[in-house]
Amino acid sequence: MKLNDLGERRLIALVRRRFGRARAGIALGIGDDAALVRGPSKLLLTKDLLVEDCDFRKALHPPFLLGRKALNVNLSDIAAMGGRPLYALLGLALPGTTDEAWLDHFLRGFGAAARERGVAVAGGDFSESRRIVISVTVTGDGTRAVPRSGARPGDGIFVSGTLGDAAAGFRLLERGRGSGGGKQAGRLLRAFLDPEPRLDLGAALGRMRLASAMIDVSDGLSVDLSHICAESRAGAEIDLARIPMSEALRRLSDRPLALALDGGEDFELLFTVRPGNLGRVRRLAARFGFTEIGRIVRGRKLTAVDASGRRKPLVPKGWEHFA
Amino acid sequence: MKLNDLGERRLIALVRRRFGRARAGIALGIGDDAALVRGPSKLLLTKDLLVEDCDFRKALHPPFLLGRKALNVNLSDIAAMGGRPLYALLGLALPGTTDEAWLDHFLRGFGAAARERGVAVAGGDFSESRRIVISVTVTGDGTRAVPRSGARPGDGIFVSGTLGDAAAGFRLLERGRGSGGGKQAGRLLRAFLDPEPRLDLGAALGRMRLASAMIDVSDGLSVDLSHICAESRAGAEIDLARIPMSEALRRLSDRPLALALDGGEDFELLFTVRPGNLGRVRRLAARFGFTEIGRIVRGRKLTAVDASGRRKPLVPKGWEHFA
Repeated sequence: MKLNDLGERRLIALVRRRFGRARAGIALGIGDDAALVRGPSKLLLTKDLLVEDCDFRKALHPPFLLGRKALNVNLSDIAAMGGRPLYALLGLALPGTTDEAWLDHFLRGFGAAARERGVAVAGGDFSESRRIVISVTVTGDGTRAVPRSGARPGDGIFVSGTLGDAAAGFRLLERGRGSGGGKQAGRLLRAFLDPEPRLDLGAALGRMRLASAMIDVSDGLSVDLSHICAESRAGAEIDLARIPMSEALRRLSDRPLALALDGGEDFELLFTVRPGNLGRVRRLAARFGFTEIGRIVRGRKLTAVDASGRRKPLVPKGWEHFA
Repeated sequence: MKLNDLGERRLIALVRRRFGRARAGIALGIGDDAALVRGPSKLLLTKDLLVEDCDFRKALHPPFLLGRKALNVNLSDIAAMGGRPLYALLGLALPGTTDEAWLDHFLRGFGAAARERGVAVAGGDFSESRRIVISVTVTGDGTRAVPRSGARPGDGIFVSGTLGDAAAGFRLLERGRGSGGGKQAGRLLRAFLDPEPRLDLGAALGRMRLASAMIDVSDGLSVDLSHICAESRAGAEIDLARIPMSEALRRLSDRPLALALDGGEDFELLFTVRPGNLGRVRRLAARFGFTEIGRIVRGRKLTAVDASGRRKPLVPKGWEHFA
């Protein structure tokens, strides 16, 4: 059945079925003018828009995974603040010709990611459009919020996981090499189609007050590091030999370092640490999986140092659209 | 200058200039991963999507007024909950060919409405799309929230302002009769282009605990009354002679009652009142401008009674798209 034939009431019924109505802390939810929820005294608010053919392609992204990703990229913003996510609102504008099955899988994916992370879906809005637009808002507890602006010269720079996998995965998909690529290709595809927000790491760094500045790597390391530096009025030096790259990326991409620096959509955490806290943070590296990649410096320059000690400017490359 | 040439950083700078950065209660705002704001213990969350050519037409709606309306329709949802608005997030997906001037006027309008109502713009997100998509989220204080589900048989039914003006104004605009229509036409156009959320009335009814159920009239009286009845598991009887209609609507529309019942986008408040509170509420009518139009009844039927006492079913008409 197409959404054109479904009607608003059946649409709301479908949403209620997928997300449930009564969730902990929600007094009034889907089906009222606004959701009424328990609020923390320090409230985090984040919002992401995903537009078909700009931020995703319908043909490349299975709807269940797109639903998961739509929530998870917002949870990554909460993680980047050192926060704990609480509630989500889902806005969807869909063509009337959308299959009900597509919507159902999307909602199942969104709901699955919400349950996994203890996030309650509190409400949302539907509209029509020629192309799919997904607008997600997430609230969180920001009692221990970490800003982008707290980095100081001398701080160490760390990044979680490996970089460039999502960008490489997108390129595989785009060239139709999605299936049959073996385990390494699967890892890259998963990084793009189904990224995981680093909520545990973000919350731990916030709780222990170990990160002086933090951001999630969504536009690419070079751009997101430039955001931290701009907000903190500082520069940075990155050691290219230490940029964490997966075996899969090295094997399957002809320019792994470029994707790791500028690829984007990694949804890993990039954070800085005061010199006095470096020891404590390094001891957490194995547990959470992160790597020390450089230092915050005086001035406003971003510099990359290669394995032979050559220094060149690190240019923040505008984020690449994935569609 | 077109947005294509503007770049993300200049875009964020423009947003900061229009909305300011440090507002009361915002610890971290535009330019971080998430906004950090002061949260009430009972938090209202609402979200509306406005899609070009579905919810508005760019050629008919001046960008300043569209910016105002994008916020005000969300504030109307907070009003309908008896709440007080606190923070707004703005998500915008725009074609790269959009004029910077269009965006600037839109942001000015959004900012003006926010200042008027004491709402702080805490953050948002930008993306690209072929058609304009506006996604607004507003948080509010829901300490005295009024649900849709609280109406009981015997309750009086009230509605604020006059109904049908926005729908009539849209029809005037559509037929190119926007300008030169005189004062009456101006009233109808304003109702459509620049609706005012009934925040004072909503908050007063919440604070005094006088509304048993409440909703804002966005889809049309017949549809929104059916929402209250469905959520409250009750029916309603409406006195057609009492439906509040403006002089302008009666003069300039050939079917004023149809627009008042089914037109939509009125953003007036529809609320119910227990029999024991009717006297107190009626004494507020002159101050806030509202009218008693009927009664909640047992069963699930919606009935309209005309001036000669004839009864017929009130059919909730699907909301009409304004574009």
